[in-house]
Amino acid sequence: MSTLGMITFISDTGWGGGYAAVLEAIVARLHPETRVFHITHEVPVGDVAAGALTLGRIAPLYPPAVHVAIVDPGVGTTRRPVTLFAGRGDFLVGPDNGVLLSAAYALGGLRTAWALDPSRVRTKAGLPIDKISYTFHGRDVFAPTAALLAAGDDPEAFADPVDTSTLVRLPDPVAELSGDGAVSEVIEIDRFGNVGLALRFEALAGQPGEYTVEVVGEDLPEWRARAVNTYGDLRPGELGVYCDSWGHVALALNSASAAQLLSIERGTKVRLTARPPSLTDSST
Amino acid sequence: MSTLGMITFISDTGWGGGYAAVLEAIVARLHPETRVFHITHEVPVGDVAAGALTLGRIAPLYPPAVHVAIVDPGVGTTRRPVTLFAGRGDFLVGPDNGVLLSAAYALGGLRTAWALDPSRVRTKAGLPIDKISYTFHGRDVFAPTAALLAAGDDPEAFADPVDTSTLVRLPDPVAELSGDGAVSEVIEIDRFGNVGLALRFEALAGQPGEYTVEVVGEDLPEWRARAVNTYGDLRPGELGVYCDSWGHVALALNSASAAQLLSIERGTKVRLTARPPSLTDSST
Amino acid sequence: MSTLGMITFISDTGWGGGYAAVLEAIVARLHPETRVFHITHEVPVGDVAAGALTLGRIAPLYPPAVHVAIVDPGVGTTRRPVTLFAGRGDFLVGPDNGVLLSAAYALGGLRTAWALDPSRVRTKAGLPIDKISYTFHGRDVFAPTAALLAAGDDPEAFADPVDTSTLVRLPDPVAELSGDGAVSEVIEIDRFGNVGLALRFEALAGQPGEYTVEVVGEDLPEWRARAVNTYGDLRPGELGVYCDSWGHVALALNSASAAQLLSIERGTKVRLTARPPSLTDSST
Repeated sequence: MSTLGMITFISDTGWGGGYAAVLEAIVARLHPETRVFHITHEVPVGDVAAGALTLGRIAPLYPPAVHVAIVDPGVGTTRRPVTLFAGRGDFLVGPDNGVLLSAAYALGGLRTAWALDPSRVRTKAGLPIDKISYTFHGRDVFAPTAALLAAGDDPEAFADPVDTSTLVRLPDPVAELSGDGAVSEVIEIDRFGNVGLALRFEALAGQPGEYTVEVVGEDLPEWRARAVNTYGDLRPGELGVYCDSWGHVALALNSASAAQLLSIERGTKVRLTARPPSLTDSST
Repeated sequence: MSTLGMITFISDTGWGGGYAAVLEAIVARLHPETRVFHITHEVPVGDVAAGALTLGRIAPLYPPAVHVAIVDPGVGTTRRPVTLFAGRGDFLVGPDNGVLLSAAYALGGLRTAWALDPSRVRTKAGLPIDKISYTFHGRDVFAPTAALLAAGDDPEAFADPVDTSTLVRLPDPVAELSGDGAVSEVIEIDRFGNVGLALRFEALAGQPGEYTVEVVGEDLPEWRARAVNTYGDLRPGELGVYCDSWGHVALALNSASAAQLLSIERGTKVRLTARPPSLTDSST
Repeated sequence: MSTLGMITFISDTGWGGGYAAVLEAIVARLHPETRVFHITHEVPVGDVAAGALTLGRIAPLYPPAVHVAIVDPGVGTTRRPVTLFAGRGDFLVGPDNGVLLSAAYALGGLRTAWALDPSRVRTKAGLPIDKISYTFHGRDVFAPTAALLAAGDDPEAFADPVDTSTLVRLPDPVAELSGDGAVSEVIEIDRFGNVGLALRFEALAGQPGEYTVEVVGEDLPEWRARAVNTYGDLRPGELGVYCDSWGHVALALNSASAAQLLSIERGTKVRLTARPPSLTDSST
């Protein structure tokens, strides 16, 4: 197995308190020559699906690497610590709670999975095996595992193969076409307040048109929205529907927060209804 | 052209969602040996002038490098993507909206400007040319451009010279002396709530003195302020006027937020009036 | 003296405004080959004890390095800029306000201390000596000092020995056992709202049990809490007492903020009272 020499981290610990730094410190001590990248440590707290989405989008932009995801509300319980090997040559390391799987698919497909044995990981890494906390496996298990894998160690040395069909999978977010409309879950709200939907843009008719936007199940006003290419095509206060940089349908205002206007958060379901150019019925 | 081998990024995308990481991922894939630094990704959303200010202050502290600024509310519209070459040997890369210019001046002066041709950038970088989003040119155009320039590629290979007089320029922030006073725009509020003004400190009389501070055009109370060297010279609750670490006039409290006390944000205009030692009439 | 080649930074300046980047820029210019790590720049503003806690916990996880702490409300006053040498071979650099000391103890003990002479630091680093601001010694004194030390320079070249007994020490946070209870100061609230106490966990009886939790000196409701290993052992809404990853007593909810539930911030004093298994009387 060749040496990847590169690790990325993603977590929901934030930078405050130094918890993100701990991860790179462990790597710097075990294998100082390893390159470490931080995808983000601001995943919404405990939001495994949000972590999975971001990792799945961004891991493939890096060269092959060991990607560690620590969004782990079940830390210290019976949930398994795992590592996955993907088709492009990347390893994924983290809890078996679904946070790693969409990245495995995006990295050329899930090939092999192992359950980590924390004691063997730590022994192999030269760390004391009686110092495993219940609440910070990022420091005590996952970062040491990543350092070993990035240095070319064989996962069989500290992990046991598991049937990939036993891995925990997250439900797909809702994205359904129906008649002249679509209902889709909100999967992302960025720093600009742009609202990203699970619905892929090619599922909508390619021609710019007009839509009605409403929040499903809430007694909130409907909004009219216009299909545009980018924020700058919108008049002040006008809501836009566009193809975001990941190929998904998204909602935006020009220089203001669409999420705030629509009282939307991650997980909210939104109904889009076409007015003239109808939605195609191609599958999402 | 020698190889700079170093890139800095500044943006308003935040770290959440991994958008900042995307930029370094692109560079890591194209030219893994390039060193990447992040100036900040917390520029106030869409605030081109704030980005320009921070880049102009901080880029010169690095060794010569390629500096990429992505504060780009006009992304995907007709605004040009550009690269500038500065007297010290640095390149600047970003939208032609004024975010790069003050850094060019601070880096030894603006020497040459080119309009980027996104298709030629991507071809040169070995990236597919049909994958340019409307809303994330940081990933699709600017980071690849920076990777090429940092590796020593000639901008003529993927960009066309433009007359530097056609570049978009931001208006100077207000900083006017008048009689025994000065009116100045607030250009910075830091994490401590210290309020930085456009007015340079040497425009004020050098001797410590007393000032009256008021927000222009608002019916808010006046405050008395004392000229001091540093926060610790102030009594609790006392407002201070001092020379900040960039040589500008600034307002502070000791261990509290002056911005909050004065209900001030970036762009607010503040009037300072001397009481005893008068303001000089030297130009700012 | 061998070359450490590695610097860590911790501060309360935040990443906004680029103040954290300034520190690494200075190092990149003086000694480009030095590795720079950022522990965090989100220490609560002006909270010297919080900075000391985080540095003391995290510095020992890195290989021997120069650790720079800039939580410095007294910057520009008579407080001394210092560097300390610790038993493991690390240097610590920052203001003499207590922020460095717990790290020195955690790094093998405080061996030697020097007061920095800013003019000699800057001369040695090849920087102009008339450009020392009153309010940003991170940039003007501490980062250059760190660059020199990381490159192997002798502190005697720019600093004067001081008696370690003259260094400013922070008071220990309150952590007292008494009868069937304990009173402890809150020393950390993390991004999850978990509440870390100064009290070490081994001071409590090892057996899981039940506790009453109340905020000292506030007319707030009492809460019942159960001793558990980790968050996932708690029912929704149930308050837990656990051993955090640093070995301290901490309070948590499962997927919610205990700090918010209890209206607690850093420095709040909390009383824990055992119900069945009593607290041991071993010293903290």
